[in-house]
Amino acid sequence: MAAMASLHLKTHPHSVSRLPKPYAPAAAVALPLRFRRAARSAARISASLIDPDGGRLVELFVPESEKGSRLEAANGLPRITLSEIDLQWVHVLSEGWASPLKGFMREAEFLQTLHFNAIRLESGSLVNMSVPIVLAIDDAQKSRVGSSASVALVDERDDVVAVLSNIEIYKHNKEERIARTWGTTAPGLPYVDEAITHAGNWLVGGDLEVINPVKYEDGLDRFRLSPAQLRDEFERRNADAVFAFQLRNPVHNGHALLMTDTRRRLLEMGYKNPVLLLHPLGGYTKADDVPLSWRMKQHEKVLEDGVLDPETTVVSIFPSPMHYAGPTEVQWHAKARINAGANFYIVGRDPAGMGHPLEKRDLYDADHGKKVLSMAPGLERLNILPFKVAAYDKTQNKMAFFDPTRAQDFVFISGTKMRTLAKNKESPPDGFMCPGGWKVLVDYYESLSLLDNGRVPEPIPA
Amino acid sequence: MAAMASLHLKTHPHSVSRLPKPYAPAAAVALPLRFRRAARSAARISASLIDPDGGRLVELFVPESEKGSRLEAANGLPRITLSEIDLQWVHVLSEGWASPLKGFMREAEFLQTLHFNAIRLESGSLVNMSVPIVLAIDDAQKSRVGSSASVALVDERDDVVAVLSNIEIYKHNKEERIARTWGTTAPGLPYVDEAITHAGNWLVGGDLEVINPVKYEDGLDRFRLSPAQLRDEFERRNADAVFAFQLRNPVHNGHALLMTDTRRRLLEMGYKNPVLLLHPLGGYTKADDVPLSWRMKQHEKVLEDGVLDPETTVVSIFPSPMHYAGPTEVQWHAKARINAGANFYIVGRDPAGMGHPLEKRDLYDADHGKKVLSMAPGLERLNILPFKVAAYDKTQNKMAFFDPTRAQDFVFISGTKMRTLAKNKESPPDGFMCPGGWKVLVDYYESLSLLDNGRVPEPIPA
Repeated sequence: MAAMASLHLKTHPHSVSRLPKPYAPAAAVALPLRFRRAARSAARISASLIDPDGGRLVELFVPESEKGSRLEAANGLPRITLSEIDLQWVHVLSEGWASPLKGFMREAEFLQTLHFNAIRLESGSLVNMSVPIVLAIDDAQKSRVGSSASVALVDERDDVVAVLSNIEIYKHNKEERIARTWGTTAPGLPYVDEAITHAGNWLVGGDLEVINPVKYEDGLDRFRLSPAQLRDEFERRNADAVFAFQLRNPVHNGHALLMTDTRRRLLEMGYKNPVLLLHPLGGYTKADDVPLSWRMKQHEKVLEDGVLDPETTVVSIFPSPMHYAGPTEVQWHAKARINAGANFYIVGRDPAGMGHPLEKRDLYDADHGKKVLSMAPGLERLNILPFKVAAYDKTQNKMAFFDPTRAQDFVFISGTKMRTLAKNKESPPDGFMCPGGWKVLVDYYESLSLLDNGRVPEPIPA
Repeated sequence: MAAMASLHLKTHPHSVSRLPKPYAPAAAVALPLRFRRAARSAARISASLIDPDGGRLVELFVPESEKGSRLEAANGLPRITLSEIDLQWVHVLSEGWASPLKGFMREAEFLQTLHFNAIRLESGSLVNMSVPIVLAIDDAQKSRVGSSASVALVDERDDVVAVLSNIEIYKHNKEERIARTWGTTAPGLPYVDEAITHAGNWLVGGDLEVINPVKYEDGLDRFRLSPAQLRDEFERRNADAVFAFQLRNPVHNGHALLMTDTRRRLLEMGYKNPVLLLHPLGGYTKADDVPLSWRMKQHEKVLEDGVLDPETTVVSIFPSPMHYAGPTEVQWHAKARINAGANFYIVGRDPAGMGHPLEKRDLYDADHGKKVLSMAPGLERLNILPFKVAAYDKTQNKMAFFDPTRAQDFVFISGTKMRTLAKNKESPPDGFMCPGGWKVLVDYYESLSLLDNGRVPEPIPA
C-alpha cells in the first residue's frame, strides 16, 4: 500500500493510479431519464464543476494562526469525549462532505433529516440530507455541560479536537431515529449496535470548529482527500464531468467494466474529459466486511492490473462511517460526492443494503435504492446512473452486463460466494478478478483464520 | 344531531352553525414566523382561496351519464373487496382531499411518501404527502387480478364502488411502511392492528374512478362536504382567509378560546372576513376515542351554546381515517385542508399523537408536530398557527391561555382526566365545557358502561 501511495504521489499530488491501458467496455449502461436529459444538454457542457450544496463548500478548520488561543480557550470548556465514529463524523463535517451543514445537527436539522431526507436553506431551497449526523451525550455529560454555550470535543486521549459552539441539547429518541432511518427496529443493525444503542439519551448540536484535523495514522491518511482537494484535482485535470463510484467491497471486473463503460458513454454524450472518482468508504464498517486497509491493498492490485485508466481515475477514501441504511443512506453517499465535485453518480443493486437482521431476506428491496435516489429532493442536479447487473459470462470468460435473452450463459457470483471461495483459497472463474487482487482477499481470509475463530483482525499496516 | 343538521340546512346549504354571539377572546396566540410573514403582506390579501395542491382540485367521479356503461364494463373486471378503511380512502381520494393524487399510490408515490413526505410533480415542484394512501391485496387476490390492467373495487355487499385502472402491483413491506410512518414498530399501533398487520403482502396502485360515491347512511352524510363544496361555501361567504381546526375529540372551551382568538388576530392582520373550518375527523378512530356520532352531538351542543359565531364558522366532517402518526400525520391533516381552501392551520400540542403502545410515555415529543409541520416540504403556502396551551384558570373560572408567570392559578385537565370525570358522572370545573356538551359525554360513557365491560358501543343514530 505504501508503494501504491508513493507511486501515486510521485506522479500526482493526490494518490492517482498510473496504470497501462483502459479496460475495454463490453456492454451498455441503461440510461435513466436524468442521464438522457444531461445528454440532450451536452452542448452546454462547461468545464466548471458542480456547485457544492448550498453554493459554498463548508470547511470548519480553525486557521493555523488562531490554534493556540483557541486551544487555550477550549481547555476551559466542558469536555465531551468522542467515540471513534463521532470522530469520523467530525472529520466528515470539518471537510464539508455534508455542506452546508456547519456542525452536528440541531433539532430542526435532525427532524428534517428524519422526516424529509432534506433540509431547507434560508433561501427556501432544499438540500439533501438523509442520515442524521448527530452527537449523543448521556445524562452525566449533559449535567457537566450545564448552561455552557460551548463544549470542547476531545479524543480518547483527552486531547482537544474541536469546539462546538452555540450548542442546543435535545432529546435523543433512539427508537424513532432508528425506525425512520432504517425502516426497521429489528435488533442487530450494525451501526445501531455500535453507535446508538449504548449512546446517551441526548443529542448536542452546534457550530463545529476543528482545531486538530482528524488523522488516523494508519498509512492511509494520504488517500483521504477532502472535497476541496478533490475539486482541485479535478480542475487540474480539466475534468468536464466527474462520475463517482462508492464502494465498500473488493473491486471485481464487473465493477471495472461498469466504470469504463460509463466513461465511454459520457464521451459519447459529448463530454471531453470525464474523470472517475473511485471512492471506497473508509469509516466504520461491520465486522464481516473486508477492512479498509485490505480493500485498499486489493484496489491497488486491481489498478496495477491496468483495468482502469490512471489518467482519468482518482482514487481516494471517503471518510464517512457506514449506516447500512439502504435507500436512505445512498442519498447521503451521493450528496457527499456532489460536494466533492461529482455530477454523475453510479448506483448499483441494493446500495448500502444488507440482509435483514432477523429474517431470511434482504433488508431493502434491491431496486428501491436507485428509485429513491432518482426522486430525492435536493439531488436534482446530480445525474444518477443505475447500472445493469454484471455477471460472469461463461461464453466470454469475463464479467459482462447480464443479458436476459441468454441467461444460461451467465453465473452470478455473490459476495457470499466470493467470500467462501477466498476463504477456501479457491480461485474464482478466470476474468472475475485480477489474480493479484484475488490473492489479497485470500490473504485476508487466511489472516482471519489464523486468529481466534470469529475474532476480527487488526488492520494490517499499509 | 338531526336537529342540528336541519337547523343548519335551513339557513345555509352546508351545515353551518347559527348561534347567538361570538365567544370573547381572552389571550393571545403565539405567532410563528410564517404567521408574521403573512401579517406583513396583509396589504396583498385577496379574496381568492388558496390553490389546491397541484393547481387543480382532483375529483374522481364518473359522470352520471356514463355510470351505466362503466358499471357494465366494471362487472367484467377482477374484483377487489374493500375494507371499511379502504372505502374511507376511496372517499378521500375521490373528492380530492389528496390532490393531486389520482388514485391509490403506485410505488413511486409510495416511496416518496415514506422517504420524503412529499411527491414531486411533473413540473418539478413538490406537494406534501406524508401518509401512504395504498390498497393492499393478498396473494390470492393478486393471482385473481392476473395481468388485468384494471380492477373493480367492490364493497362488502359486492357492489361495485369504483374502478382502478393502469394498475401497478408492488410489494407491501409492512415493517418498513410502519417504521417510516410511525417511527416505531411497537405492537399495538391502532391503525396498524386494524389495517396493516392482517392486510395482504402486495399493494395495488392506479387511477381511480368512482362510480358510486361513498355514503355512510349514518345520518351524518350531509356534514361530509367535499373540498369543492367547502370551497363553494367559503366563496359564497366571501372569506378572505380560512383557518382550519382539525379535531377528533370533544370540543372544550379551551379549543373555542383558541378559535375565536385566532379570528381576532386574523382581523388585526388585515383580513376582512376570516372563516373557521371546524373539521372533526370522521374516518376510523381507535376504540377508546369518542365515536363520531357522539362527537358531532357534542359539537352541536357546544355550538348551540354560542361559543362560536355561526356567521364565520363552517362545521363539516373530514372523511380520512386516523393514523395516530403524530408529526407525520399532522402534515396530511394540514395538506388536505389546503385542498379544501384553508390557508391557515391551527396546530396544537402533540397533534395526532397518542401514548406509546409499550412504554409509559407519549409516542411523540409534544413539540415535534408543530415543528415538523412548519418545516414540511410542500406546505410553504400554508400559514401554520401553533397555539399556546390552554388550561383552566382558577382565578377566572374559565379556560385561558396558560401563563407560566402564574402557573399556580391553572389546572390542566387532560383527556384522561376528562374521561374519568365523565365516566364517573362528575362535573368538570365551571367554564371548562358548556353543560349541554358535557352531558353528551356523560351520556356516552353511560351508554358504554351499560354494555359489556370493554365492548365498544354501536354509534348512536344522529
